[in-house]
Amino acid sequence: MLSDIEIAQQAKLRPIVDVASQIGLSEDDLELYGKYKAKVNLAVWDRIKDRPNGRLIYVTAITPTLAGEGKTTTAVGITQALGRLDKKVALCLREPSLGPVFGIKGGATGGGYSQVLPMEDINLHFTGDIYAVGAAHNLLAAMIDNHIVKGNELNIDPTRVVWKRVMDINDRQLRSIVTGLGGKANGIPRESGFDITAASEIMAILCLALDMEDLKRRLGDMLVAYTYDGRPVYARDLKAVGAMAILLKDAIKPNIVQTLEGQPAFIHGGPFANIAHGNNSIMATRMALKLADYVVTEGGFAADLGAEKFFDIVYRTAHIRPDVVVLVATIRALKFHGGLPLSALNEEDLAALERGLANLDQHIDNLKNIFGLPVVVALNRFPADTAAEIQLLKEHCARIGVKMAVSEVVTRGGEGGIELAEALLEAMQQENNFRPLYDLETSIEEKIEAIACRVYRADGVVYSKEAKRAIDTLKQLGYGNLPVCIAKTQMSFSDDPSLKGAPRGWKLNVREVKVSAGAGFIVVLTGSMMTMPGLPKNPAAENMDIKPDGTIVGLF
Amino acid sequence: MLSDIEIAQQAKLRPIVDVASQIGLSEDDLELYGKYKAKVNLAVWDRIKDRPNGRLIYVTAITPTLAGEGKTTTAVGITQALGRLDKKVALCLREPSLGPVFGIKGGATGGGYSQVLPMEDINLHFTGDIYAVGAAHNLLAAMIDNHIVKGNELNIDPTRVVWKRVMDINDRQLRSIVTGLGGKANGIPRESGFDITAASEIMAILCLALDMEDLKRRLGDMLVAYTYDGRPVYARDLKAVGAMAILLKDAIKPNIVQTLEGQPAFIHGGPFANIAHGNNSIMATRMALKLADYVVTEGGFAADLGAEKFFDIVYRTAHIRPDVVVLVATIRALKFHGGLPLSALNEEDLAALERGLANLDQHIDNLKNIFGLPVVVALNRFPADTAAEIQLLKEHCARIGVKMAVSEVVTRGGEGGIELAEALLEAMQQENNFRPLYDLETSIEEKIEAIACRVYRADGVVYSKEAKRAIDTLKQLGYGNLPVCIAKTQMSFSDDPSLKGAPRGWKLNVREVKVSAGAGFIVVLTGSMMTMPGLPKNPAAENMDIKPDGTIVGLF
Repeated sequence: MLSDIEIAQQAKLRPIVDVASQIGLSEDDLELYGKYKAKVNLAVWDRIKDRPNGRLIYVTAITPTLAGEGKTTTAVGITQALGRLDKKVALCLREPSLGPVFGIKGGATGGGYSQVLPMEDINLHFTGDIYAVGAAHNLLAAMIDNHIVKGNELNIDPTRVVWKRVMDINDRQLRSIVTGLGGKANGIPRESGFDITAASEIMAILCLALDMEDLKRRLGDMLVAYTYDGRPVYARDLKAVGAMAILLKDAIKPNIVQTLEGQPAFIHGGPFANIAHGNNSIMATRMALKLADYVVTEGGFAADLGAEKFFDIVYRTAHIRPDVVVLVATIRALKFHGGLPLSALNEEDLAALERGLANLDQHIDNLKNIFGLPVVVALNRFPADTAAEIQLLKEHCARIGVKMAVSEVVTRGGEGGIELAEALLEAMQQENNFRPLYDLETSIEEKIEAIACRVYRADGVVYSKEAKRAIDTLKQLGYGNLPVCIAKTQMSFSDDPSLKGAPRGWKLNVREVKVSAGAGFIVVLTGSMMTMPGLPKNPAAENMDIKPDGTIVGLF
Repeated sequence: MLSDIEIAQQAKLRPIVDVASQIGLSEDDLELYGKYKAKVNLAVWDRIKDRPNGRLIYVTAITPTLAGEGKTTTAVGITQALGRLDKKVALCLREPSLGPVFGIKGGATGGGYSQVLPMEDINLHFTGDIYAVGAAHNLLAAMIDNHIVKGNELNIDPTRVVWKRVMDINDRQLRSIVTGLGGKANGIPRESGFDITAASEIMAILCLALDMEDLKRRLGDMLVAYTYDGRPVYARDLKAVGAMAILLKDAIKPNIVQTLEGQPAFIHGGPFANIAHGNNSIMATRMALKLADYVVTEGGFAADLGAEKFFDIVYRTAHIRPDVVVLVATIRALKFHGGLPLSALNEEDLAALERGLANLDQHIDNLKNIFGLPVVVALNRFPADTAAEIQLLKEHCARIGVKMAVSEVVTRGGEGGIELAEALLEAMQQENNFRPLYDLETSIEEKIEAIACRVYRADGVVYSKEAKRAIDTLKQLGYGNLPVCIAKTQMSFSDDPSLKGAPRGWKLNVREVKVSAGAGFIVVLTGSMMTMPGLPKNPAAENMDIKPDGTIVGLF
């Protein structure tokens, strides 16, 4: 089989104007970025907002191995399959970050014959949204330190500036730094650090805002520091809101591109799925739901992270309810959860597979019985999967009353997703009793415990002294009724990445609690969370090149 | 008079496709970024490269006040005036950096009725070139530190990593930092810092490269660190060239926009005019010269900086020779050089003006007699200028045999530049004896001394011990025959910003010497040079906003 980039480069793209016209967008609705990318003007919303919504297909996954289980690829494949079934369909995805592209994971535009195009552009700078978020974030950071140096009228305590800086590169060297050295002309010496731009609260805000006014209000509400006497300082106090909003004037507009088989794909916003909510922009999804009959979207990491956050955070803001959930699983990951080492995943092992089903079952139980949604399991088929293994999984799903479909969208494109798409169309007819997990009126601790004990199946929550103190402070500041956003490893239901399957008999350790007051959630940090990744010993970047004719090689 | 942004917002823009067609570019030659911005495909070059060049008008200035004397505005105005005279004309400018936009200086797209449009976009993210440069720069930085942490096969001395990081924000807090703190998982503790992106060697390379292959060669040649045994480490040793080139695949293409009166304007690349060469990309200028009969361009800061570097660095790479030089002057700045304080510049003071002419005269003498070029003085007229002051300047120029024209392009657009444009068309008929200042074969010290003693009129050069040692090292490494790029304050001919007019009896202090081996010049740092600006007490950002209808206010 050809490599992802070879398949992408051989594809014949349609002008984006034609693709957008499939869902009723005219050339005037678009701002072109070359022939195959465009932004959609927000004015479109006024024209379409009173239409009924299409059906929403939400793609999530079991607890993944490090490589991921193919959520994006499956979402693209379902979109292509629905296109083949003559449905009016649109896809909504997050924007890839440069960090993983040059690090270990590669691009985030699907794979094989289920990709969004132009993949090189989407994986690289795309339309500049991530840079715009970074510029707004870092402008605010510079204005905070500048304020302190130039008189500090707000009485900001330099040791309590909670606003860090961001960069869209995997750069561990910047995680923990001391800034402002070299004398008074160079600022105030203080500890700080960089996060990757996807972890910026501004990225979360971009994805939760309903329009420019809402965006500005949220930007102003961001809590950036505390004064010497412990009072919060907001971005609006620095008079930074207007300038940040100007920097985001284009980033706020959803981007539209196409799948390999020509369906429209909105790719907009890319917040982390640990310290942020991990789903693409509300503006894109709600627009797509007015324009298409079926909308496919996905959230970051497994169903205990991106999906839980969609149900408890995005839903409350956007009032968008999924009609069906696709739970992507691989035989490989299930065997990994059953105790096989990574090196042995290509060997048939029915016993390990059987043991690993505990992970699948807990996700299914959560989605069906806690969140009340119809679920279809999508087996993302790999070459090494044996007939016996697939049969075992199929029988298991039948036994627990969940539909399972084999997805071959990587090797066969939309054609390989027909079985899955048909299962989804059928499942959407089932009863939908969707409800969020918790009541906003419950306490911060109760909300954390609801997620920990009911979704993750912990025996309880252990708070550090700092976390307890922070929760008290946040309640006093009036943030008690916000939803919570748990930052936890994606490698386990628990906060220990080494615990596979469906761990029991453990407690969730809450290390730190803070507010993303503009985004509108409480961030609960568990275990050791990485908000600035590093590069591997041999970064993917080392194998990339561009030929004299402009052909890119080594991007995957 | 309306503000710059009000004038810009009232302008009726033409589709960029139409503007580009004026100089023979078809829609297929362009990659559109919205309706009013485009990139020009590099394939165009093959079609036009054998045509004769148009005439090049090079705009520079006397030693400026902090606000600048209106070089960009004058360049735009001349372009508009030549348009009114029915000439086939194109403009070439540098791209604005976000730093000054949000700091003190505002945008860099001209002013009043001589602007390039769409000014909001050009001043903000434009087509993302500066971000692409920043991403390539910081990816390399991350790969260097990653290499050290992951085994350090190249034996890099962490205390001798000379490659810093960059950000396109004025952020003094990042000038001097310690990175890699918090234990081994977070890198190697070492001192470092951030420059503004315009100061990145990659920005200089983007502006000096002739094509993608040349760009890649130069990227590979960048000297980024030394080993423990003192050997140089290049970007190519880190295997970072291909990935950086991929990040720059769009940035390498010249951007095209339009003047307020509809002439095509290439805006491409924005290197600093102190530690880099301060002129827009060669790719844009040489393309413009094949497409238009007249091309107007400008260089950073005064004629001792941007212009000298065009003549000694850009010319040697591109073999592009100016046909005439425009020396922009203001009555205000001349009086400032004559000793008036900034607060008194609005008052008539013929004696101060007379004294200040020494600055003008030294620039004219350099341009005419050292570089052998025809010169026209453009008086950028301000409301407070009196008739007697203008008369004095006019008589002085007549006395020393240089044409002077009053430019009213700010208040009157192209119409206000007709006198100047006609003077230029006439001056281009004069003899042109252009020659660079020095021979590349002379020693590094001889080249520095040629600039210091002949252009700046210093009595000599004083080298720090470190600078002497660095020069010896660079000679040993084979860099002795590169041109030199002097990083000096723009506020004076000397290295002391407080010395106005035409200072005599001083020596140039060379503090540090290093090589930009990819860009292909020796950087000579004099005095205390700032490669990361700071924000003022009340940054321009504080007054900016975007209204619900999308109108931007406070950008200037």
